[in-house]
Amino acid sequence: MKVTVIGLGPGAGQDLTGRARAALEECDLIVGYTAYVELIRPEFPEKECLATGMRREVDRCRLAVEKALEGKHVAMVCSGDAGVYGMAGLVYEVAQEYIPIDIEVIPGITAACGGAAVLGAPLTHDFAVISLSDLLTPWEKIVRRLKCAALADFVICLYNPASHSRPDHLRKACDILLEEKDGDTPCGWVRNIGREGETARILTLRELRDEPVDMFTTVFVGSSETRVIGGKLVTPRGYATRRG
Amino acid sequence: MKVTVIGLGPGAGQDLTGRARAALEECDLIVGYTAYVELIRPEFPEKECLATGMRREVDRCRLAVEKALEGKHVAMVCSGDAGVYGMAGLVYEVAQEYIPIDIEVIPGITAACGGAAVLGAPLTHDFAVISLSDLLTPWEKIVRRLKCAALADFVICLYNPASHSRPDHLRKACDILLEEKDGDTPCGWVRNIGREGETARILTLRELRDEPVDMFTTVFVGSSETRVIGGKLVTPRGYATRRG
Ligand SMILES: C[S@@+](CC[C@H](N)C(=O)[O-])C[C@H]1O[C@@H](n2cnc3c(N)ncnc32)[C@H](O)[C@@H]1O
Ligand SMILES: C[S@@+](CC[C@H](N)C(=O)[O-])C[C@H]1O[C@@H](n2cnc3c(N)ncnc32)[C@H](O)[C@@H]1O
Repeated sequence: MKVTVIGLGPGAGQDLTGRARAALEECDLIVGYTAYVELIRPEFPEKECLATGMRREVDRCRLAVEKALEGKHVAMVCSGDAGVYGMAGLVYEVAQEYIPIDIEVIPGITAACGGAAVLGAPLTHDFAVISLSDLLTPWEKIVRRLKCAALADFVICLYNPASHSRPDHLRKACDILLEEKDGDTPCGWVRNIGREGETARILTLRELRDEPVDMFTTVFVGSSETRVIGGKLVTPRGYATRRG
Repeated sequence: MKVTVIGLGPGAGQDLTGRARAALEECDLIVGYTAYVELIRPEFPEKECLATGMRREVDRCRLAVEKALEGKHVAMVCSGDAGVYGMAGLVYEVAQEYIPIDIEVIPGITAACGGAAVLGAPLTHDFAVISLSDLLTPWEKIVRRLKCAALADFVICLYNPASHSRPDHLRKACDILLEEKDGDTPCGWVRNIGREGETARILTLRELRDEPVDMFTTVFVGSSETRVIGGKLVTPRGYATRRG
C-alpha cells in the first residue's frame, strides 16, 4: 500500500516531529536497522517491528516495498534525516523493480543540525556536508570534495568520521584541510547527539587531527569566520556589523 | 534567566519536534519575526508574544537577552533550523555584551531536509548549502562558493534564491554552475515547504536558469549522479550496485 520513510532525528524520542510521530502511530509495520528500531520501539510498544542488521540496506528496502505490496502501511525508520546518508534514496531505487507503490518521505533533524545546536551555532552560514566513509564513494572523490570545500571557505560538517576499518580517515581529512586552512581554525565534535552519553568538544583543526573519534560522532570544521564565543562554536553571519 | 532559540521546522505545526514543543510550553515569552510568531501563536494561544519586523535581527536578539535578564524564560523562534541562516549565532554574539545568561539551541528541520523530502531524496550524498543573498555576504564570495561546489560535484541546495531587490540571482548562479555542469543536470525547487500552497517542480539546470522563483523557495541542483526516478529527484548512494 505505502512506504513512509521516516527520519527519527539524532536521538529519536524528543527529536521526533509531530508528523513523524503521527505516521508511526498510523503504520502497520515498522522496518529498520536494529539499533533504530530499538530506539523507537518503547514508544510504540504495540507495533509490529522487523529489524535487519547493518549493511543490509538493500534487503531492508526490498522488505519494506514487498510488505507494502502485501497491503501494509510500512514505516521505514532512519536515524537523523531520512534522506541525508539515509534510506530514502534507496527505497525509490529499489521500488522501481516492482509495480508502483506510494512512497512518502518525512524529514528529521539531521546530525549536522542536531550537533550544531549542541556546539552553539557553527552552521549559520554556507556549509558543506561530507561523509568520510569510502564504502560507497572512492576516496579520491572524498579528497576532491574536502579540497574544494576548504577553497570555498565553507563550514564543513563531517559524517562517518571513522570506523574500525578506517580509524585514520579523520586525520587524513584534517591533513588535506590543513593545506588550505589555518591550524587554529575552531572546530568541534559531538558524540551521541540527543542520546545517552552525549559529549562534545571544541578544539582547533590542529588538535582535531589527533582526536580519537568514532562512528557515533559528527565533526565540524569552521570557516575563516567561525569563532569561539562564550565557550560556544559560532559562525557570525554579519548582522552585528551590517549598517543597512 | 534563559533564552532558548527554537527551530520551528519549515511549516511549524506538524514539523515541530517534541523538544521544541515542550520548550514553547515551558517558556514565559515568545520572541520572533512577525511571520513566524503568527505561525506558532495559534498553537500556544495563552503565551505572551513579542514580534519584530524583518531585518530587525539585532534588535530582536537584544530584546530576547534583555527579557531573559529581567528573569524570563524567553523562546526565540526561527523558521526551519535555529542555526541555518537563523538567529542562534546572533543571540550568542549579542549576549556577549551583557552579563552571562543561559542560552540553549533546539534544532529544527531545515528547508534543505524538508524540501528534499518533497522532491524525493536528492541529498542522500555529500551536499553544499549556499545562500544567494548578498545582504551579508559579498557576491564574489558567493560566486567562489558556487564554483567550488560545482567542481566538487556536490548536490547544491540554494537558500534565498531571489528577492525583490535581486530578482536575477538564481539566473546568475545557474550561469556559473553551467560553466562546470551539464545543462541536463536534474534540479528541483520547492516553495512553501510544509505550509499552505506547497508547490514543487523538477526540471533541468538549463530550465532552472529561467525559472521565476521567490524568497519562499529552496532550490536543489543535482550532482553528476542525481537522477529522476519515478518522477522523484534522487541521488543514488551506490548501495544498489555495491558488491561487499
Ligand atoms: C549513515 S549516517 C546517517 C545520518 C543520518 N541519516 C542523519 O541525517 O543524521 C551515520 C553518521 O551520521 C552521524 N550521526 C548520526 N546520528 C548521530 C548522533 N546521534 N550523534 C552523532 N552523530 C550522528 C555520524 O557521523 C554517523 O557516522
Ligand atoms: C533566512 S533563511 C532561513 C532558513 C531557515 N532557518 C531554515 O533552516 O530553513 C530563508 C530561506 O530559507 C528557505 N526556506 C525557509 N523556509 C522555507 C519554506 N517553508 N519553504 C521553502 N523555503 C524555505 C528559503 O530559501 C528562504 O529564502
